Amino acid sequence: MSALDWIAADWGTSHLRVWGLAGDHVVQQAQSDQGMAQLGRDGFEAALLALVGDWLPNGQITPVIACGMAGSRQGWVEAPYRSVPCTPLGATLTPAPTRELRLSVHVVPGLKQVKPADVIRGEETQIAGYLARNPGWDGVICLPGTHSKWVHISAGEVVSFQTFLTGEMFALLTQHSVLRHSVAGWDSAGFADGVAQGMERPERLMARLFSIRAEGLLDGLDPALARARLSGLLIGAELAAAKPYWLGQRVAVIGADGLAKAYATALAGLSVPVSIHDATEMTIAGLNEARAHLPPSERPCVN
Amino acid sequence: MSALDWIAADWGTSHLRVWGLAGDHVVQQAQSDQGMAQLGRDGFEAALLALVGDWLPNGQITPVIACGMAGSRQGWVEAPYRSVPCTPLGATLTPAPTRELRLSVHVVPGLKQVKPADVIRGEETQIAGYLARNPGWDGVICLPGTHSKWVHISAGEVVSFQTFLTGEMFALLTQHSVLRHSVAGWDSAGFADGVAQGMERPERLMARLFSIRAEGLLDGLDPALARARLSGLLIGAELAAAKPYWLGQRVAVIGADGLAKAYATALAGLSVPVSIHDATEMTIAGLNEARAHLPPSERPCVN
Repeated sequence: MSALDWIAADWGTSHLRVWGLAGDHVVQQAQSDQGMAQLGRDGFEAALLALVGDWLPNGQITPVIACGMAGSRQGWVEAPYRSVPCTPLGATLTPAPTRELRLSVHVVPGLKQVKPADVIRGEETQIAGYLARNPGWDGVICLPGTHSKWVHISAGEVVSFQTFLTGEMFALLTQHSVLRHSVAGWDSAGFADGVAQGMERPERLMARLFSIRAEGLLDGLDPALARARLSGLLIGAELAAAKPYWLGQRVAVIGADGLAKAYATALAGLSVPVSIHDATEMTIAGLNEARAHLPPSERPCVN
Repeated sequence: MSALDWIAADWGTSHLRVWGLAGDHVVQQAQSDQGMAQLGRDGFEAALLALVGDWLPNGQITPVIACGMAGSRQGWVEAPYRSVPCTPLGATLTPAPTRELRLSVHVVPGLKQVKPADVIRGEETQIAGYLARNPGWDGVICLPGTHSKWVHISAGEVVSFQTFLTGEMFALLTQHSVLRHSVAGWDSAGFADGVAQGMERPERLMARLFSIRAEGLLDGLDPALARARLSGLLIGAELAAAKPYWLGQRVAVIGADGLAKAYATALAGLSVPVSIHDATEMTIAGLNEARAHLPPSERPCVN
């Protein structure tokens, strides 16, 4: 196994994922449920060491580059938002305080947009990774997830972006609402049908959600069909509202396997030229880009 | 105090409310959190007796008329839905099994609509109460709540109706979502602003919800303004989708005080002739109407 020379960390609200790398080659990986929401400011270093402590070579400082909620106001250290239009990564990273002498930690700042007010934390790194892999690419990046992001890229800069609560809404409805007993499983045709309905009349969303419940009561609607249609209705409404982003553009979808594919399928159905890219791969590529911004003393001689 | 001759019961998912009446005059009232969701089929009678046991005169049978979820499949006894178009109350009530000899219990059936699939349980009684008070009234009844209902009334019948998940969505977002720490209090101007935004571009709902969070982070958005705007956005989107119901119609809003007023204010702003009516009053009036459908042997001689 190659010697590890830096560590990439994706620190979300609910999870921490880390990778040990030799250059851009992953040699170790681990994860835990020690997301930002579980931790007080003093808990971050211990949560990180619990995963990477055994990886650290003695007698040297291993740099850690982190993105995501570790840089939020409730995180390890606040990495203030940078304002768009700007490149996804800036010239500086924010150092986090550490006691362990074998590591130094730097956090990637998020992005903010003044009007309409919007914020990004974590996805800027995936965007940087995608642009590093595709230099000179112009178009729109769609990052589906708990809070889906649509991002307009031009000349290497994030020009504007918009966030939708779609993924969180799906979780709330399937876990906490009156629909929770009516939905389970997946049905591809039901998803496509929901997307079409959601796009055609997005304003009817709240009524169509209750229809799922009513069809369950009256017609014994199949729970797999119900869950897929629910997802489709939400994503369809998002696509209707995001039309100014995707219309006449090429779209790169960056996300986890199933969800990215669902968005890509829906976009392809609208004749949008679309490609799919793995979120984890883009995160690591972006953190590798960010590593170039480390202070020279902490930059390992691997480039 | 006049002698009680019947009992009205509004049995919801989360609460049970009962009134003891002499004719149409309330002489007793009580409530508990023994809603349908808390009870197995065998628990309903005990939950009712816990509230009304002390009211029951000896040596006679006191009739109880119940509406709401007590008549659902998971309720005390299933009172099968009646299909619209139909009058809000039918000719028969569904008897519930009882062991206590001093009471007889009958449940009001709900209404169903085949296409688009939709159901009502409880609001049919409020509608019946409203029509009893306003004979010959034609128009649209709006019943805001956890699941808001818009109901088209013509010639004393429910012609069609549509349910929106609006109230439940507000509860989910304020209690379980990323917005829960950003919203508290109320601001009337913020509500009006939200309604206008929600109506104008209902398809942007999921994006505007995240904007509330982003404005909180970036601009320190006042939590009272945030909560009122959230409510306004949801109600505005509902009004946009319910336009086929209210456009060119007079609307009777039946609901609890604050919420009914919020809907009425929004409708009045759209130049819709609107009146407000208390939900409890309409429920009791409707149950009093239903009492006329009791089997003759159980009908007290008070009319």
